[in-house]
Amino acid sequence: MKEIQSTKNGLIKERKKLHKRKYREQEGKYLLEGFHLVEEAIKYGAKIEEIFIDERGKKEWGTWIAEQMSTTYFVSDEVMKQLSDLPTPQGMIAVVQKEAFAELTYQGKWLLLDNVQDPGNVGTMIRTADAAGFNGVLLGKGTADVYSTKVLRSMQGSQFHIPVIACDLLEVVPEFQKNQVPVYGTELNVDAVQFNQVEKTANVALVLGNEGQGVAAELLQMTDKNLYIPIHGKAESLNVGVAAGILMYAFV
Amino acid sequence: MKEIQSTKNGLIKERKKLHKRKYREQEGKYLLEGFHLVEEAIKYGAKIEEIFIDERGKKEWGTWIAEQMSTTYFVSDEVMKQLSDLPTPQGMIAVVQKEAFAELTYQGKWLLLDNVQDPGNVGTMIRTADAAGFNGVLLGKGTADVYSTKVLRSMQGSQFHIPVIACDLLEVVPEFQKNQVPVYGTELNVDAVQFNQVEKTANVALVLGNEGQGVAAELLQMTDKNLYIPIHGKAESLNVGVAAGILMYAFV
Repeated sequence: MKEIQSTKNGLIKERKKLHKRKYREQEGKYLLEGFHLVEEAIKYGAKIEEIFIDERGKKEWGTWIAEQMSTTYFVSDEVMKQLSDLPTPQGMIAVVQKEAFAELTYQGKWLLLDNVQDPGNVGTMIRTADAAGFNGVLLGKGTADVYSTKVLRSMQGSQFHIPVIACDLLEVVPEFQKNQVPVYGTELNVDAVQFNQVEKTANVALVLGNEGQGVAAELLQMTDKNLYIPIHGKAESLNVGVAAGILMYAFV
Repeated sequence: MKEIQSTKNGLIKERKKLHKRKYREQEGKYLLEGFHLVEEAIKYGAKIEEIFIDERGKKEWGTWIAEQMSTTYFVSDEVMKQLSDLPTPQGMIAVVQKEAFAELTYQGKWLLLDNVQDPGNVGTMIRTADAAGFNGVLLGKGTADVYSTKVLRSMQGSQFHIPVIACDLLEVVPEFQKNQVPVYGTELNVDAVQFNQVEKTANVALVLGNEGQGVAAELLQMTDKNLYIPIHGKAESLNVGVAAGILMYAFV
């Protein structure tokens, strides 16, 4: 196992840059932290460029890591702190190549996210789409980057299970409709259709929107119907991740 | 409006301590940050000890605050940073007296949280319980403190809408059962009852558990039935806040 002690090491300086979306897009790779997620990446055949482990990681997963085909670096705690964005690094970080997913088929069940900004919400929604057996998730303009560390943490490996594709929702919505897939927006409007009064179909595209403003008006005009979840108490709204979960499971 | 410029001011030193649960319990009060939440507190008649605003807060809500009955302090940015736990303080922080809620009635719909540790999850679940028209939320051992700043932020004022009570779940579960309220645990076990195959009743107590370990075995043995949400994809589980939302709305 190679060792890197210095934070000034050229490879470390390069990999640190992957905390920025721009570099992730340029390089086509991202940082994935924690044993559980790295194990999931390997299980699903993701291409790992290298794995960094520190003293703690070596103690806990030294035997496991020796059995992997990936290049491994044993790094100092200082180096690990440079690669991690957590107050307490998790002992292991992998550099993973982004997946090139198959083309969009416009069939089945899809979750479409319009300008959902909180990475924790985005990750949770992808994880829920995976659990609900949805075919994939489309990330529209303004939505948090799927490869940011916070999305990766709350997504819990679901990017290896279903396609997650950044695209322009204004372009894909008409394509779903051409393929007889009903597209449902969501809004906090009692004139919309109550979510459990719409027919459960095998094909569906559900659009969830921004935490504060909801789905863009332009998109709400293109959809086949817009759904709402009734609020019975005094809360003003539901968390968007919770709303997505209730809606997706209503279509299962 | 009184002014406080120094972080060494005696009142500021006292109020800062409210970031710790121990002091919140000792003093019976807590810090509530942001105009929206403070407005909600006043709307629902919460007792406000004082309101602190900074330059930004004064500009935005100066007129509003002049109309309130509460003691207001205009504070320096340095003082506000001591009172806030956000990277960017929100311009307004109130010191609010904890509510003394009426006694538990063991009627209606209740959400019971066993050892749910993440404050964001706890807050989201209380907000969802409020939205779903549940009567209240009981926080069992190990569950995040309802008055911690992170719970307050994700709860969005729901503590003013429904009772949120810390208690021992091992003691309240038999009380619900004595009052003919069915108590349902939740587990990731396909031998459990699928959540949408149980009768929708007007009274119900739903127990959600720890993010990693689920509901304690001791509690699962006391419940009338244990429910599960089927996982159709490759995700290992659902986020506990999302699971709670799906289950609560299944009983609405």
